[in-house]
Amino acid sequence: MISLDGMGGDHGPPVTVGGVREYLKQHGGEGIRFLLHGDEAALAAEVKKAGLGDVCEIRATDKVIAMDEKPAQAMRRGKGSSMWNAIEAVKDGEAAGAVSGGNTGALMAISKLLLRMSATGLERPAIVASWPTLNGITAVLDVGANITSDAEQLVDFAIMGEAFHAAVHGSTNPSIGILNVGSEDMKGHEEVREAAAILRDNPFGLNYHGFVEGDDIAKGTVDVVVTDGFTGNIALKTAEGTARFISQIMRDALTSSLQAKAGALLALPALKQMRARIDPGSINGGPLLGLNGIVVKSHGGADARGFGNAIRVTVDLARSDYTAKVGANLKRLDAVLHSAPPEPVETVS
Amino acid sequence: MISLDGMGGDHGPPVTVGGVREYLKQHGGEGIRFLLHGDEAALAAEVKKAGLGDVCEIRATDKVIAMDEKPAQAMRRGKGSSMWNAIEAVKDGEAAGAVSGGNTGALMAISKLLLRMSATGLERPAIVASWPTLNGITAVLDVGANITSDAEQLVDFAIMGEAFHAAVHGSTNPSIGILNVGSEDMKGHEEVREAAAILRDNPFGLNYHGFVEGDDIAKGTVDVVVTDGFTGNIALKTAEGTARFISQIMRDALTSSLQAKAGALLALPALKQMRARIDPGSINGGPLLGLNGIVVKSHGGADARGFGNAIRVTVDLARSDYTAKVGANLKRLDAVLHSAPPEPVETVS
Repeated sequence: MISLDGMGGDHGPPVTVGGVREYLKQHGGEGIRFLLHGDEAALAAEVKKAGLGDVCEIRATDKVIAMDEKPAQAMRRGKGSSMWNAIEAVKDGEAAGAVSGGNTGALMAISKLLLRMSATGLERPAIVASWPTLNGITAVLDVGANITSDAEQLVDFAIMGEAFHAAVHGSTNPSIGILNVGSEDMKGHEEVREAAAILRDNPFGLNYHGFVEGDDIAKGTVDVVVTDGFTGNIALKTAEGTARFISQIMRDALTSSLQAKAGALLALPALKQMRARIDPGSINGGPLLGLNGIVVKSHGGADARGFGNAIRVTVDLARSDYTAKVGANLKRLDAVLHSAPPEPVETVS
Repeated sequence: MISLDGMGGDHGPPVTVGGVREYLKQHGGEGIRFLLHGDEAALAAEVKKAGLGDVCEIRATDKVIAMDEKPAQAMRRGKGSSMWNAIEAVKDGEAAGAVSGGNTGALMAISKLLLRMSATGLERPAIVASWPTLNGITAVLDVGANITSDAEQLVDFAIMGEAFHAAVHGSTNPSIGILNVGSEDMKGHEEVREAAAILRDNPFGLNYHGFVEGDDIAKGTVDVVVTDGFTGNIALKTAEGTARFISQIMRDALTSSLQAKAGALLALPALKQMRARIDPGSINGGPLLGLNGIVVKSHGGADARGFGNAIRVTVDLARSDYTAKVGANLKRLDAVLHSAPPEPVETVS
């Protein structure tokens, strides 16, 4: 069972129920049922329209968290809302994961409140972006939740990002890089150098590659790029801004003369295919990592297809060994960082 | 007089002397003379070929700092090299500024050693990138030198970036934003919030806009984007990587079918014009800010035209009120941060 905030996002039920339809159409999703939280009439109408009565169960609530509500307010007043109930179903063990396209700050706050952090070094759940590159998809995290990160948190991100990439993007033994201003060992600030030292000693069987730079993200040099939420958020938005800038000046160029317009018309089908690959945010469905439970954020403006992909991410995580693997590695990290060094073994000479 | 490291960069004299030719051709540069440091025979041959004997003076040295030399090594062993001598001419008051396409780390170390920092809060000179946006050029700094920056350093960057943008990109009253993960006052870490508070109180007559996000850079929301060298370097390289990624998949798309190829052929002149605008590094010439003297870094791989633009940046800075304006504002900042609060004025009621 997957739990959905039926009202979250800019479009509500047409997209959330449409997302179920798209998910089933594209990924099969055999045997999976959906718990839809929100306005009963609106959801029922969409479920009927899509012919999904067999796989959807509606849990009625009129309460919705507004897109501009502050996290603290959402925590105080959000109980019984479609988002709250969607997450509570995960807490109660009724659902294997939850998806919401609602207010990100509220989703993080309520998820943390109800599910608690499993990665105890983290202040808030980490957000992972699935970034299209010349070499497949690279997972970049944290892209906005934890704005300062010490070495332990960066290693938490490596552990979670690795398991996420394997579960959702199907890699075996994903490679991991720490984002830095250069690739040499002595580059960067203390936090990244310490995290690199922990991963180099490599007690978790992770495939640690080393430091990577900003341009390595789009190259796809590694499968997982680890960074603090401040740098990650700025890198992601800078890339989105750059992509939009180039789209705009390309549009300008291709309408700058009759000849260019004719060329653009001929190349249009190819350019359209390309467009989908441009936007670093185009692969929808960013899980909140580090919680005792699976919660996936769908982009507020996503369409049904995008929401369907967020459902796919949730199902892939729930069906994989993600939770067990992360749990075991976080425990190993904790032992490395916080245990007394082992007593020296006395040897008889 | 402008002092040039004649040997710096991937191509040496053909580009450095060619840069003088391009600069004079495009910008006039009336009355300016050039001091060329490096291999006498190679430089003389290029000067003769370009017919620049009247405006160029050669200072012979065989010593060159290698592109992969470590900064500490360059400081110890670099005396008498073409780079060293180029900067020394600024120190001695013989030249109004220096340009080098050589090893960035060495250039920063030697510049700091010979010229000393004027912005005393900075550990190293700041590097500024001139970033093409939908709204002209935005100056982003620091993009790599100071990997951790406290509030004072961020305000230093604001002061220097503002004067740089006015001098080199011709703006009046450039607007300034601090790069952050959101635009609200309480967003971000302590350093950006403190810097924002100083600039909001605004003792320097700067046009402070507020926080900006990563996608605001390419939008051109402000003229100057202030950030620490770690984040700035990663933002710049991420944008460069994104631009290259899009160029690559565009190339793939436009060669994916006969029809697309025909379209591309027609649109080619327009697309070529566009290409020059894509790369955030395309505007060559990044000054090292915060020194007692003007030193401009040219990209190692720049061609003669690019080197010519680095010369233009140097001349524009030298001819402007940049140095006086920055000096006055740094003094005002120092007074704000480090002086005792003024005694309350007694009023007679």
